[in-house]
Amino acid sequence: MALAYLGSKKPNTAAIMSSPPQLILTQDDLKKIAAYKAVEFVESGMVLGLGTGSTAKHATDRIGELLRQGKLSNIIGIPTSTKTHEQALSLGIPLSDLDTHPVLDLAIDGADEVDPDMNLVKGRGGSLLREKMIEGCCKKFVVIVDESKLVDYVGGSGLAMPVEIVPFCWKFTAEKLQSLFEEAGCVAKLRVLSGSGEPYVTDNGNFIVDLYFKKDIGDLRAAGDAILRLAGVVEHGMFIDMATTLIVAGELGVTVRNK
Amino acid sequence: MALAYLGSKKPNTAAIMSSPPQLILTQDDLKKIAAYKAVEFVESGMVLGLGTGSTAKHATDRIGELLRQGKLSNIIGIPTSTKTHEQALSLGIPLSDLDTHPVLDLAIDGADEVDPDMNLVKGRGGSLLREKMIEGCCKKFVVIVDESKLVDYVGGSGLAMPVEIVPFCWKFTAEKLQSLFEEAGCVAKLRVLSGSGEPYVTDNGNFIVDLYFKKDIGDLRAAGDAILRLAGVVEHGMFIDMATTLIVAGELGVTVRNK
Repeated sequence: MALAYLGSKKPNTAAIMSSPPQLILTQDDLKKIAAYKAVEFVESGMVLGLGTGSTAKHATDRIGELLRQGKLSNIIGIPTSTKTHEQALSLGIPLSDLDTHPVLDLAIDGADEVDPDMNLVKGRGGSLLREKMIEGCCKKFVVIVDESKLVDYVGGSGLAMPVEIVPFCWKFTAEKLQSLFEEAGCVAKLRVLSGSGEPYVTDNGNFIVDLYFKKDIGDLRAAGDAILRLAGVVEHGMFIDMATTLIVAGELGVTVRNK
Repeated sequence: MALAYLGSKKPNTAAIMSSPPQLILTQDDLKKIAAYKAVEFVESGMVLGLGTGSTAKHATDRIGELLRQGKLSNIIGIPTSTKTHEQALSLGIPLSDLDTHPVLDLAIDGADEVDPDMNLVKGRGGSLLREKMIEGCCKKFVVIVDESKLVDYVGGSGLAMPVEIVPFCWKFTAEKLQSLFEEAGCVAKLRVLSGSGEPYVTDNGNFIVDLYFKKDIGDLRAAGDAILRLAGVVEHGMFIDMATTLIVAGELGVTVRNK
């Protein structure tokens, strides 16, 4: 079985890479491989940031499994969304919050895009603010992706860079955001629920504006500051210089890169 | 009567200054003098930002009065708070919003502090975010204060510089804010309602953390960017390089300063 090595807590990455699985792996298989590899960084007694999204879900499941098996103990999880909170509760992972644990040992989370400098785009799942609060105060932040998430530049996948904004005069803020990146051919769209067409509302009661770029926006730190200076903006989905380890699962195996 | 000249739409400021009123003026008289002076900048047909607070209230009252008297017409007001919205409605001032009018001709508002470079602290009234959104897109922004609001540096009055934050893990964010300005002896306090002790909630559903500084925090632009980079922060109360005209009413008369 192609995923057999997932059962071992310390697989030999080199061996995996030299012996690519013979079966065709689905994108979800790749997410699972990256997630399980990341959980190898978890040690008993750690305070852990638990990410949100389809890849991070596998990591949280695996942590719950190792706790049940007694291979991990004394773990405290800090969930990055109400969804992950519920998942972790159902797995029996003891939970806490940032007020009680303002410094975390490790966080594991997926990303929507990863650029060559390990800068991330996150928030297509809508939890960018809580993720950034939690993952911004971790000693180690392990990012897990399948190889489709690697991009040459932020926005390079053609998918959105999300910005959380206050609902008050959201059109005005969306237009300001679009103008800010006019040279990059930016298009700003309010995120809406597919059924009703009503605005998507975040865990914090805010809206999300998705920015689509046609070109590289250049200096991400400067772009981030310009976005944050717009009154009405709460947070953006660029996680700049935050990831410490990147785990990429692809058809040919798993690669681990440290910063 | 000391305030008699307030009835004239174009008082002679020089004359006022050389002939100080003989009666003792209250702080509210001074606020009214500054407000009436600011309304001289208003012309028929303008789209106006209407401020919030005890000083701005006088300006909005005066605009309503001039509309009733037929001395102004075709004014559209954009209120900076639900409170000002109600005041303007009761005065019969036609209202709109930023989505419809993304560029304003003029805004008039008070400030809690004004430093020597005309940078402001605002938000003790809790409306800093909407004020900043609206006053950030005005061709002219006239700030009206009594002389007690002039400070040597931001925080120099010993009163608070407010920061609007998301309620999620507010203690964590408050501690991050305090740490950011440790060298300036910063103390961060959650704003609470005087009766119940419950957190004060802004028009946008957020909390306010009031920062008290013992010393000058230095470069305000850098300080502002550092605050905004904290995930969890929505907006801060420093209005940097935004005021175009400052009107100060003091015991000795009114001074008008342009930038």
